[in-house]
Amino acid sequence: MPRLGMTLDAIRAIVGGGEIVGSPDFVCESVASLGRAGPDQLSFVKDQRYIDSARSSRAGALLVPVEIGDFRGNQLIVAEPYRSFGVLLSKIAEEQRRQPKEVHPRAEVHESAEIGTDVCIGSGAVVREDARIGDRCVVHANAYVGQRSILGADTTLYPGVVVLEDVSVGDRVLIHGGTVIGSDGYGFMQHEGRHLKIPQVGRVVIGCDVEIGALTTIDRATLDETVIGRGTKIGDLCHIGHNCRIGEDVLILPTVAISGSVTVGDRVVFAGRSGCADNLTIGEGAVLGGTAVAFKDVPAAASMWGNPARDKTLEMRIQAALRRLPEMQRDLRAVKKKVDL
Amino acid sequence: MPRLGMTLDAIRAIVGGGEIVGSPDFVCESVASLGRAGPDQLSFVKDQRYIDSARSSRAGALLVPVEIGDFRGNQLIVAEPYRSFGVLLSKIAEEQRRQPKEVHPRAEVHESAEIGTDVCIGSGAVVREDARIGDRCVVHANAYVGQRSILGADTTLYPGVVVLEDVSVGDRVLIHGGTVIGSDGYGFMQHEGRHLKIPQVGRVVIGCDVEIGALTTIDRATLDETVIGRGTKIGDLCHIGHNCRIGEDVLILPTVAISGSVTVGDRVVFAGRSGCADNLTIGEGAVLGGTAVAFKDVPAAASMWGNPARDKTLEMRIQAALRRLPEMQRDLRAVKKKVDL
Amino acid sequence: MPRLGMTLDAIRAIVGGGEIVGSPDFVCESVASLGRAGPDQLSFVKDQRYIDSARSSRAGALLVPVEIGDFRGNQLIVAEPYRSFGVLLSKIAEEQRRQPKEVHPRAEVHESAEIGTDVCIGSGAVVREDARIGDRCVVHANAYVGQRSILGADTTLYPGVVVLEDVSVGDRVLIHGGTVIGSDGYGFMQHEGRHLKIPQVGRVVIGCDVEIGALTTIDRATLDETVIGRGTKIGDLCHIGHNCRIGEDVLILPTVAISGSVTVGDRVVFAGRSGCADNLTIGEGAVLGGTAVAFKDVPAAASMWGNPARDKTLEMRIQAALRRLPEMQRDLRAVKKKVDL
Repeated sequence: MPRLGMTLDAIRAIVGGGEIVGSPDFVCESVASLGRAGPDQLSFVKDQRYIDSARSSRAGALLVPVEIGDFRGNQLIVAEPYRSFGVLLSKIAEEQRRQPKEVHPRAEVHESAEIGTDVCIGSGAVVREDARIGDRCVVHANAYVGQRSILGADTTLYPGVVVLEDVSVGDRVLIHGGTVIGSDGYGFMQHEGRHLKIPQVGRVVIGCDVEIGALTTIDRATLDETVIGRGTKIGDLCHIGHNCRIGEDVLILPTVAISGSVTVGDRVVFAGRSGCADNLTIGEGAVLGGTAVAFKDVPAAASMWGNPARDKTLEMRIQAALRRLPEMQRDLRAVKKKVDL
Repeated sequence: MPRLGMTLDAIRAIVGGGEIVGSPDFVCESVASLGRAGPDQLSFVKDQRYIDSARSSRAGALLVPVEIGDFRGNQLIVAEPYRSFGVLLSKIAEEQRRQPKEVHPRAEVHESAEIGTDVCIGSGAVVREDARIGDRCVVHANAYVGQRSILGADTTLYPGVVVLEDVSVGDRVLIHGGTVIGSDGYGFMQHEGRHLKIPQVGRVVIGCDVEIGALTTIDRATLDETVIGRGTKIGDLCHIGHNCRIGEDVLILPTVAISGSVTVGDRVVFAGRSGCADNLTIGEGAVLGGTAVAFKDVPAAASMWGNPARDKTLEMRIQAALRRLPEMQRDLRAVKKKVDL
Repeated sequence: MPRLGMTLDAIRAIVGGGEIVGSPDFVCESVASLGRAGPDQLSFVKDQRYIDSARSSRAGALLVPVEIGDFRGNQLIVAEPYRSFGVLLSKIAEEQRRQPKEVHPRAEVHESAEIGTDVCIGSGAVVREDARIGDRCVVHANAYVGQRSILGADTTLYPGVVVLEDVSVGDRVLIHGGTVIGSDGYGFMQHEGRHLKIPQVGRVVIGCDVEIGALTTIDRATLDETVIGRGTKIGDLCHIGHNCRIGEDVLILPTVAISGSVTVGDRVVFAGRSGCADNLTIGEGAVLGGTAVAFKDVPAAASMWGNPARDKTLEMRIQAALRRLPEMQRDLRAVKKKVDL
């Protein structure tokens, strides 16, 4: 159980105020979801839709947007319960993942690397020549930072992450386990019937406040930079090809694949397992639905579904019609017979 | 070649009996598939369908379900040749992967961790604070076991596996190379135009006799548990989202993606690269065909094909009709002309 | 910026000749793409299609196929500018990735392993019993080479690569970060309602001049060998199932999945996220388009699109017709009414 161990009063202080219904001294031992919380646990009511479920909850205490009349436990009324709950979760996460502020004796840090203050570098981690690790970074066990690569302040590389040479990572970036940044893009030319490698000598530049899931690959540019814009959030097992320029605040859900040299505007959403072919432009604020794959440029603010991706409304009508296709085939045969065709 | 080096008589003893046709003293040096086995090798005849191939096999010896008249080599007749052959393969695999029963001097095991008996912990492996490693576990080189995580008895983590904090793994579990268990689920809320991270503080619980392929991600729950039930087998490069509850004896083939908060019943089969959207329920014993993706709940025992997944029979009829769609379009045009529409 | 620091004259010598227009003493400090190159940078004009862009380029120097009249910078005229530029990129890449020719004191190399000359083995890398590492190989930090596995000469394993036991890798092979070679194939048999593991005791054999992207899995054969032919290039996050036999000079782009026991002919192309079901044969020179998935054998030289993959021409006609399907449905209804059906 994610341990909390705080009184409702202390919680009120942390989330910045709110009105308590019940006992301010009630101790919330841990947190749980609304359906599973027990009498010593805290949960939350996201919005109006959950108020009925809250009434029958066994939770000892709830963060709520309005007082819930029939609920027997304690309540803390706040403007945005989900966000306030998130603040508490940050405290819990921080406690669960507390790292010693030290370079582990079994970390391998090159003497030419610049290491900031209050940094944690774990056992087996490797920091190569001329790399720079910003203040308060955590480079977990067996992670790797290549030659001349830079991590901004407060950035975390989880275990086994590989950041190859000449990669620049901003501040407050999270890169989850096993992800590989800066691998060679897939670039070959044909020559006398063989595939010749085009060496990939460009960089990867990752903005501040980016999060990248586990086991994701972001390839280095051939010559210039592969760019991930500020605030963009990428899931597990995604692939971002070489030379891509991904905008700011983009959402790229797990198992998305974006081929090489794609330009993605700000606030685009790639839903689960969606993707796009190479050399395309995906306009600002466009949304690709789950498993949609674009083979043409996508205009700004468009909603695209299907593979090949089409305007969502058209695709929904096609899918609805498809269910009746065998029947249409039969009808057409009957009509042809009737009109002697 | 997978080396065996056993007489047919010794093999009979290991597989628990059977009748020998030919020489009990014949030495099977190694094993191979039926089509490739040579005169000093052992192979097997899975069932009646392979008897013809067996007749022309060059194998020195065969495990067979019935005596094969025309085969010149030696035979061991057993009730289930495939299963008996599997028993021999286990012996070979054990020999090929024999590990020293020791904590390698270059493993980093925290003093607060509890380590069982006859454990192997490889070079560069890391076992964090308050972790527990069961008897006879093998934690291969450069693998990682996070704070408070537990491995049951006889469990194997292959090289580079990352098991983050607060993960519970059962007995006899195999986790293949580079897989990451317990990464943060993809959870963000929108706030003033930015994406705020919802910290993921729940756990992952993996039952006994589970196998998980290489480079797969299973994300931790937001608050409660992501659960993989007993006996479930997961392939390479799969993604299991946060808060999923996967049943027992489920088959999840390579490159399957299951989004967050999905409930999967016992004995469900996800064929290669199939998947499903978030918050769905996949009923007990349902089958999703290769590349099928469910966007709605799937009833128990249903067979679903296609993307979006539909009842298999309907989808087959749609696909058959689709091949004739260009022709239908032409016919319809002719019909319209004929009837003056 | 990828640093070059060479005069045009020196460049001419390296690429094997060519005619200089402008100053042979002009120093190209670094390289960039045509659209982004500045006055101290070198770029290239791939072919006739780029000559217009070249005219307005700010590049200090260009490799060109013919003299470009209006371009103000320096030019080096060569027969194949792209290939000549590739030669320069190789020099840059070599410099960027220069490794010390040493076995790092924190590498763990078993005393029974055979290590060639001028080898680099990085910190935390592990080389197991009876492994053989060819001359001039680079085994990067935290990579793993299993028992009895062999790397040919001039082969590179990037950080975190896992090559398990009994794998044979040819000369001049590149395997990118985190890739896992030789994991168990997905093989289970049903027995009394449970899934019994079929141990996988075969090998993986990788030919010379193969490149394998980051976070890719190639599973070992059940009994015989999984084979990757000479010169084949595999992208990131690909999956090659057990018992596959992949031909020579095959192109397998990122996120492709090939199920078990598939035979792939020479020079086949699997475009991004394409794939195929198990036990198929893909004929020599066939092309599967982006996201195409074959569920049947593919004849040699065929071009297949869609999922399920169909002949490209047919699939294009189906997709064109699909856009008009809702309209067809309406028309058919009108026709039925008109003819009283």
